[in-house]
Amino acid sequence: MPLLDEDYLFPADPQARRVARALYEHIDGLPLISPHGHTQAQWFADNEAFPDPAKLLVIPDHYVFRMLVSQGVRMEDLGVPSVDGSPVETDSEKIWQIFADNYYLFAGTPTRLWLDHSFQHLFGIDEPLNSDSAGRCFEHIARCLEQPEFRPRALYERFNLEVISTTEDPLDELKHHRQIRESDWNGRVISAYRPDMVVDPDYEGFAHNLAALGELTQCDTRSWRGYLEAHRQRRVFFKAMGATSTDHGHPSARTADLNDGEAERLFHDVVSGKASGEQKDLFRAQMLTEMAKMSIEDGLVMQLHPGSWRNHSHLVHKRFGRDKGFDIPTTTDYVGALKPLLDAVGHSPDLSLILFTLDESTYSRELAPLAGAYPALKLGPAWWFFDSAEGMKRYRQLTTETAGFYNSVGFNDDTRAFPSIPARHDVARRVDCAYLAELVSTHQLHMNEAEELAVELAYGLAKRAYRL
Amino acid sequence: MPLLDEDYLFPADPQARRVARALYEHIDGLPLISPHGHTQAQWFADNEAFPDPAKLLVIPDHYVFRMLVSQGVRMEDLGVPSVDGSPVETDSEKIWQIFADNYYLFAGTPTRLWLDHSFQHLFGIDEPLNSDSAGRCFEHIARCLEQPEFRPRALYERFNLEVISTTEDPLDELKHHRQIRESDWNGRVISAYRPDMVVDPDYEGFAHNLAALGELTQCDTRSWRGYLEAHRQRRVFFKAMGATSTDHGHPSARTADLNDGEAERLFHDVVSGKASGEQKDLFRAQMLTEMAKMSIEDGLVMQLHPGSWRNHSHLVHKRFGRDKGFDIPTTTDYVGALKPLLDAVGHSPDLSLILFTLDESTYSRELAPLAGAYPALKLGPAWWFFDSAEGMKRYRQLTTETAGFYNSVGFNDDTRAFPSIPARHDVARRVDCAYLAELVSTHQLHMNEAEELAVELAYGLAKRAYRL
Amino acid sequence: MPLLDEDYLFPADPQARRVARALYEHIDGLPLISPHGHTQAQWFADNEAFPDPAKLLVIPDHYVFRMLVSQGVRMEDLGVPSVDGSPVETDSEKIWQIFADNYYLFAGTPTRLWLDHSFQHLFGIDEPLNSDSAGRCFEHIARCLEQPEFRPRALYERFNLEVISTTEDPLDELKHHRQIRESDWNGRVISAYRPDMVVDPDYEGFAHNLAALGELTQCDTRSWRGYLEAHRQRRVFFKAMGATSTDHGHPSARTADLNDGEAERLFHDVVSGKASGEQKDLFRAQMLTEMAKMSIEDGLVMQLHPGSWRNHSHLVHKRFGRDKGFDIPTTTDYVGALKPLLDAVGHSPDLSLILFTLDESTYSRELAPLAGAYPALKLGPAWWFFDSAEGMKRYRQLTTETAGFYNSVGFNDDTRAFPSIPARHDVARRVDCAYLAELVSTHQLHMNEAEELAVELAYGLAKRAYRL
Repeated sequence: MPLLDEDYLFPADPQARRVARALYEHIDGLPLISPHGHTQAQWFADNEAFPDPAKLLVIPDHYVFRMLVSQGVRMEDLGVPSVDGSPVETDSEKIWQIFADNYYLFAGTPTRLWLDHSFQHLFGIDEPLNSDSAGRCFEHIARCLEQPEFRPRALYERFNLEVISTTEDPLDELKHHRQIRESDWNGRVISAYRPDMVVDPDYEGFAHNLAALGELTQCDTRSWRGYLEAHRQRRVFFKAMGATSTDHGHPSARTADLNDGEAERLFHDVVSGKASGEQKDLFRAQMLTEMAKMSIEDGLVMQLHPGSWRNHSHLVHKRFGRDKGFDIPTTTDYVGALKPLLDAVGHSPDLSLILFTLDESTYSRELAPLAGAYPALKLGPAWWFFDSAEGMKRYRQLTTETAGFYNSVGFNDDTRAFPSIPARHDVARRVDCAYLAELVSTHQLHMNEAEELAVELAYGLAKRAYRL
Repeated sequence: MPLLDEDYLFPADPQARRVARALYEHIDGLPLISPHGHTQAQWFADNEAFPDPAKLLVIPDHYVFRMLVSQGVRMEDLGVPSVDGSPVETDSEKIWQIFADNYYLFAGTPTRLWLDHSFQHLFGIDEPLNSDSAGRCFEHIARCLEQPEFRPRALYERFNLEVISTTEDPLDELKHHRQIRESDWNGRVISAYRPDMVVDPDYEGFAHNLAALGELTQCDTRSWRGYLEAHRQRRVFFKAMGATSTDHGHPSARTADLNDGEAERLFHDVVSGKASGEQKDLFRAQMLTEMAKMSIEDGLVMQLHPGSWRNHSHLVHKRFGRDKGFDIPTTTDYVGALKPLLDAVGHSPDLSLILFTLDESTYSRELAPLAGAYPALKLGPAWWFFDSAEGMKRYRQLTTETAGFYNSVGFNDDTRAFPSIPARHDVARRVDCAYLAELVSTHQLHMNEAEELAVELAYGLAKRAYRL
Repeated sequence: MPLLDEDYLFPADPQARRVARALYEHIDGLPLISPHGHTQAQWFADNEAFPDPAKLLVIPDHYVFRMLVSQGVRMEDLGVPSVDGSPVETDSEKIWQIFADNYYLFAGTPTRLWLDHSFQHLFGIDEPLNSDSAGRCFEHIARCLEQPEFRPRALYERFNLEVISTTEDPLDELKHHRQIRESDWNGRVISAYRPDMVVDPDYEGFAHNLAALGELTQCDTRSWRGYLEAHRQRRVFFKAMGATSTDHGHPSARTADLNDGEAERLFHDVVSGKASGEQKDLFRAQMLTEMAKMSIEDGLVMQLHPGSWRNHSHLVHKRFGRDKGFDIPTTTDYVGALKPLLDAVGHSPDLSLILFTLDESTYSRELAPLAGAYPALKLGPAWWFFDSAEGMKRYRQLTTETAGFYNSVGFNDDTRAFPSIPARHDVARRVDCAYLAELVSTHQLHMNEAEELAVELAYGLAKRAYRL
């Protein structure tokens, strides 16, 4: 019995399953578009072998280790690097054994599907991971990773990727992207402009980052005009290196549209360190509108990822740093929050603002009605905790009737885990085919429409939405 | 292949589908009750032919044009009348062609089902609307509309309507309703009393409206007592003209129960233009309780439609006015908001307050528990963005287990689009039959109970809830 | 035709139904664990016959009478005891007739399933309850209740209960629990420590309760240290009498982590009656963290049940008192609210805090991400209004993908209605089997995994989570 049945995630009803399978076969060969994620350009630039299974699949993946931590495994024992000097496990085989011992915890989660998909389709494993098989699986994967066909560029090709986007901050010189472009390899690895570190006054090292931005751009980043000009320059540079989008990870979706004088005074208070919490929040809000206006100028598509309470656990943040599985979603308002930006530029035919959410109650109440009206808005796919079979199904059920399919932008994998990319796209494609099959089976769509839509959801929408 | 299969919206599972179909056949001949909507009494009074397809189906329907606008079509090019004098397209065939070119955008939406249903069952069209068929469809529908059997009264009868309610404000003299009553036609076209224009101090022309109400009723509408008396008189008049309900479109569900002196002082501040934003909101809140008390006196059923951020787009509001597809739902509280009213009159056997929502998170958390306890409360059907197959299914799934079926009030179409009325009721009936079939198939209901409930959901509950 | 088909609540799809049935048969014989509820220890101590059908099944069950009240039946006519001296119906047969006349109102609700399950499996009734059968059913049940095999201890055994927990306050001397332990009966009836009456300054008689606690423990409960010591003593006593958990019914999930001096000053203000509303709320918040710290010391599992607006109807509260079906859920925040407690003790391997909610929008947004990260947190089952087929299904669909199955704690019945306990567990087991069958049918789980999980969800998780 293979780890994953060839019909996994298709509807249980035989007739609907046949439709889903037919739709899936129709799109199975389409290339993968990966317009938003967190892989590293250096992998493709250097094209070196990935390290061992634990270092590849466990230690860097907060989806994986937070689940083990929630059941009492210590992060130290999983080899998660500490930032405060606490000693952590370094024996990859030991770490892998703990992971395998607890693999049953992932039953019913997308992580389980992604991992089983990789084990089966990437590494050719056909036995379930558990305490007993742990050593054999480790050894087998480790041996695979030594082979040339498991190097990053080979995998890019094997995965049938057409383009993959990384995410970098304005201070990044994108030297790995340059190295890839100048190489004889034809893979398309582009960046996305993520300016949080110089936009969010609460970001670690904000003042230092601002100074570095000034140095890099030769702009006076302590003046409002110079600061905006520095952004413009870096956006142009990112665009020249292939970027087609910007990305904004704000605590909320709040926007503002201050006049020039107000904005300048606010910036002055922020830069001088005198800004209150409210002023800092207003500054982030204002910067979203500024970024939207620059998007209209330079054509970079804008992504907004709000609503995560970052580093919720004080202890984990102190000992292990950022992005360690303790970012927790919060209630997020879009309707009031986005109004200033939308009143300013929401009807611009040149703006494309893609909205994501971690608060599913906003899908039908706020996001679909907004995206189903404003020409500038589109809906990003089910994100993060909702990058899952049920999450994607709810996303379609809660947004399609109001916003249709064409105000959504297809799938993006948003992952740091390169080997999981085919699995993540496969899950998304299957769930979308299952959703379309349900519409066909209940006679809400004709089969020829469903076929066209399946291609759009798997490929076309992402390509056009991200201007790829 | 017909546009809509005869089994559309029934469950995919063959056994459940058979049950749904049997239930549907059981209720298929029942008359339509349309107790809440926005058709125009003048249509039935004058009984003139409807204009061409674009003027009937595209230009006045914000469900239709906001979707096209969201994908970059300009409202001007769709002929939506401007209020600021901007020129707009007037060629109906051109407008229809744009609509047809973009008809694929509605895949997966209820608008698509309603339109296909009308095309097929009302106009006898069997080819899908698209760029190629646009002209033929336009011509065919235009020719139909010229026939006597497509006049408003003929359609009322063909649709098997038993009663239809329009919505008018207190200043309306209901002359078209009178004209219908005095005619030899037996159709029942009644009004609902919607006093927002003289209740909401933020309404355009509030002071003017108040003065006009005074003139009409010969009450001193600048005094609290006179103002309430004017409402009482108009309610009596509406009731005499057939109305059985009132309707209240407030920004929130906030209610208040001030004592007489407080209410009088508040009204004085509102009338004199000195009221703050908070006072205006308190006044709206107080007026809901006043209206509830009048309902107990005169027996008019009360409807509350809160939670829409009206005219969210400044630009659209300025150029095209109200009700142009840019009303966006917001989070809505009922539990705290309704407490003053409920403490005052929530246990009155004579009050019937029907609650609607645009915030689906309140279904299971607030509305079902409230309606499943207070005798005065009932649940309006899935509304507006949720007048859709998935929306109705969620409504049943999220409210029935706590409030049962009998605290819901059946379906209402809430539409301005007269030709879509049979389609909208048909969708509702099919979704309810599918829901009941699911309960029968999982042995939560016996078939004879499901048959009774199907009749109640399609006909009985609405008739009794609205006292028709 | 039996009242309930043997396949009730299993999926409609034949293949998925077969899987669900197989899983259900796999667990059908497992004992019931009832770790949280509101039955009375006295029943098992005295082992006297239950009174008549109305007194057993209608009058004490707010799930039952609130539905009738919502449709216009008067609480007085249902015999609900008044606290203000209003006369109420005392003829149990009359009350039962009203109940039977209105039994159709429960169509589609879990109450209907629980009652039909009891009628059929406990009392052997095979005709539906309605106006006509009312008298026969009353008489039949009344005769059953006179038999020895319907006494509490016999039912405990017939229900295959392994353990049942009641809920008592700190002033309770647990004499019935003692009586049971000292009897020759082997049933395991334990208590849970519910200190709301001495923790919540807004509780009726708070000052009096505090004094009584001081008297009982010989601690100075007017000093912060003495007050905490009194809690410690009573927890030790409850634990000695079998308790394994505490339970906290707070208006919100707010927690605080004040330093000793701050806490002491706050307690002083609370005790002296000078505390503001905000201070009282802060005190409740602080006490949750204190209780968590005591849990780490003594090993009692902690349960938090927040988010109910108790006694929402002023009239019902005044006339009939607490717990009369008018407790209404409200929006509940966990992410900010729990942070102080979690920063203090959220990573303690010895703390187990089980979270419940009445705000389903928090399942996927807050609760699953929190429980899927913090080792101290687990998710209580779908609660109260959501102790229902759809409620449980949503619970699994909205939490499993992020938190897995092993961060949930199995089912608890939370009921005052002892005869409904087998029905409630049966519904939960069937819904979980149906959910697992869906995962098996869509190839997300293998059958052997589903079998293991079915045992965990029905038995193992509750037993371990509550340390039973």
